[in-house]
Amino acid sequence: MLALVFDGSLNLVTTYADPTLRPGEALIRPHLAGICNTDLEITRGYMGFQGVLGHEFVGTVIACEDQAWVGQRVVGEINAACGVCATCRRGDAPHCLQRTTLGIDRRDGVMAECFSLPVSCLHVVPPTVPDTAAVFVEPLAAALEIVEQSHIRPTERVAVVGDGKLGAMIVQVLRLTGCALTLVGRHPERWGVYQRQGITCTTEDHLAAGSFDVVVDCTGQPAGLATTRRLVRPRGRLVLKSTFEAASEINLTMLVVDEVQLLGSRCGPFAPALRLLERGLIETAPLITATYPLTRALEAFAAARGNLKILLQMGSSN
Amino acid sequence: MLALVFDGSLNLVTTYADPTLRPGEALIRPHLAGICNTDLEITRGYMGFQGVLGHEFVGTVIACEDQAWVGQRVVGEINAACGVCATCRRGDAPHCLQRTTLGIDRRDGVMAECFSLPVSCLHVVPPTVPDTAAVFVEPLAAALEIVEQSHIRPTERVAVVGDGKLGAMIVQVLRLTGCALTLVGRHPERWGVYQRQGITCTTEDHLAAGSFDVVVDCTGQPAGLATTRRLVRPRGRLVLKSTFEAASEINLTMLVVDEVQLLGSRCGPFAPALRLLERGLIETAPLITATYPLTRALEAFAAARGNLKILLQMGSSN
Ligand SMILES: [Zn+2]
Ligand SMILES: [Zn+2]
Repeated sequence: MLALVFDGSLNLVTTYADPTLRPGEALIRPHLAGICNTDLEITRGYMGFQGVLGHEFVGTVIACEDQAWVGQRVVGEINAACGVCATCRRGDAPHCLQRTTLGIDRRDGVMAECFSLPVSCLHVVPPTVPDTAAVFVEPLAAALEIVEQSHIRPTERVAVVGDGKLGAMIVQVLRLTGCALTLVGRHPERWGVYQRQGITCTTEDHLAAGSFDVVVDCTGQPAGLATTRRLVRPRGRLVLKSTFEAASEINLTMLVVDEVQLLGSRCGPFAPALRLLERGLIETAPLITATYPLTRALEAFAAARGNLKILLQMGSSN
Repeated sequence: MLALVFDGSLNLVTTYADPTLRPGEALIRPHLAGICNTDLEITRGYMGFQGVLGHEFVGTVIACEDQAWVGQRVVGEINAACGVCATCRRGDAPHCLQRTTLGIDRRDGVMAECFSLPVSCLHVVPPTVPDTAAVFVEPLAAALEIVEQSHIRPTERVAVVGDGKLGAMIVQVLRLTGCALTLVGRHPERWGVYQRQGITCTTEDHLAAGSFDVVVDCTGQPAGLATTRRLVRPRGRLVLKSTFEAASEINLTMLVVDEVQLLGSRCGPFAPALRLLERGLIETAPLITATYPLTRALEAFAAARGNLKILLQMGSSN
C-alpha cells in the first residue's frame, strides 16, 4: 500500500506491507489526517521513531472481529495500552508503561491507505461532526487535558504562549472557562479568528512580568520556557504542552522562591472533545491552511512548517 | 418616585422617597430588571426583607462623587460589603458579615426609578452586550460560581436538577466545560433551546440512582434534595444552589456512608459572566418569556411563577 514512512529520511513508499488484523484491534481506512508539530519533530529524530507517520485522523473501520465496528466513522486515541497492568487498571491507560503510540512509538501511524488500532481506543464520530472537524479531535483532546488536570477558574488571568497548531486548540478551550485570556505569539496574521472570539492577542514585549495566574507553553521549542516563566505570577501555575527533541535549561531555585507550580500535560480525553465539536463551540475551518492528497505528502510536510493546520486527504468518507 | 415595595404585601408605591447619594456609592437609573425566584421567595417571607424589591438589573449611573462613573452603563454585584473587615480584606466581600444585599437584606433594590449601590460593586457593560443580555449577568455569575468553587472535569457526568430560571444559566455554563450534561426537569416545553445546544433533557424517572459524578440542585424547593441525593454516585459531589424559606430533612449518615460531598454555592464573579456574554457563548433571548413596564409589576410578579425569565422595563437606555 501507499504510505508516508520515516526511516531517517521521509519517503512516500508505494509498496509498504498492509497491516494485519490483530485480536482486539480494528483496521481503519483514514479519510483525513492532520500534520502536527510532533510529526515534524519526529522527522528531526524525536522519539527515535521509524515507520508510518501520523496520529491525527478520521476514518472508517474496514475490518474488525467485532462486526459492530465495521463501517463506523471513527477517531482514535493514540496510546495503545496493555489493559492489564496496575497503571491501566487504575484508569491511566495513556500512561501504561507497555504502551505503543500511533505514529510516534513502535506503532505505524495513519498516513497510509490503512492502519490498525485497538478498538478500546476508538470513538464513533456523531453524524453532525464533519470529517474536517473530526480530524481535530486528537489535538482538541490534548487541549482539554489542561482543564481535566487543573482547575482553571473563571476569574483567573491565563496566557497561552504559542500561536501555532496546538495553541489554536488551547485558546479555544480556555475561552470557554470565562477566564481572562491572552494569546501570546509572533504571527499577528493568524490572530483574526481568535480576536473575533474575544481573545486578547499580543506579542510578548507588551506584557509585564508576573501578570498571569496560569501560563501555558505551547511554543513547541525550548525558548518558550523563558517567556512562560517570565509571565507567571508568584504562586502561579505553568502548564507545559510542548514536546520536542532537546533539553531545557531552567532556574529551579527561582521556582522554589516564587512557589511556582510546573505541570506537564500531554494527551487528553476524546469524549468531551467530540461533545464540544457537536455543541458547535470550537471553530476548526479557519485553522486549515491547505489540504494535500497523500501522494503529495512530502510537499505537505514542507508546507506544515510555519503554517497552521495542513491536512492530508487520504480517501473519501464513502 | 415609583417603586415596587414589599412590606408584608407587595405594592406599587408612587411616592417612595428618592435615594440619597452616599459616599462611595452611585445612584443608578435601571433600564431593565429581572424577576428572580429569590424575589418570589421574599414575597413569602424569605430573609424577612422589607423595602424595594429586585437585584438583577442593567442601568445608567446618574450621580456619583467620582464623575468618571456618571453616564456609564453598568451591572452590579448585589452584596454591599464593609470593605475593611478580615473577611473583606481576604477578598471575600460577598461573605462580609456586615454586608447589606440589594433588594434582599437591608438595602432597597432596583425595581424603582432610581437606587443606590457602592461603586465597588459596579461593572461597566461592554458596548457589544445589549441590555436584554446584560440583565442576566447576576444569575449568570451565580452559575459561574459553581465552576469557580469546584473543578468540573470535561470527563465528568453532571446533572442539573431544575429547569427554571437559574437552571437555564447553569446548564449553559456547564456545557462549556465539555462535561456529559443532563438537565433534569418537569417542563419539556422549555427544553428546546437546551436540546439545540447539545444538552440531554429528561425527567427524573428516566435516570438510574448514582449515575452522576456531580449533581446541581437548582429546583428552588426542599423537595429537590431527594432527587439530587438519589442521582449522585458514591464519592460524588452535590452542589446546592436553591435558596428558600424552609428547613430541609436529610439523612446525613448516608452522606457519610457514601462519602458524598455537599457544597453550598451562592453569588458569583461578574467579570467572567460579562466575558462569556461578550464572547457570544450564552443564549439569553430564548429565556425571556415577557417584558412588562414597572407600572404593571404586580402582573409581572404573578406571571413569573411557573415561567422562565420575566423582565421589568424600567426606562430606556438613553
Ligand atoms: Zn498497561
Ligand atoms: Zn466586611
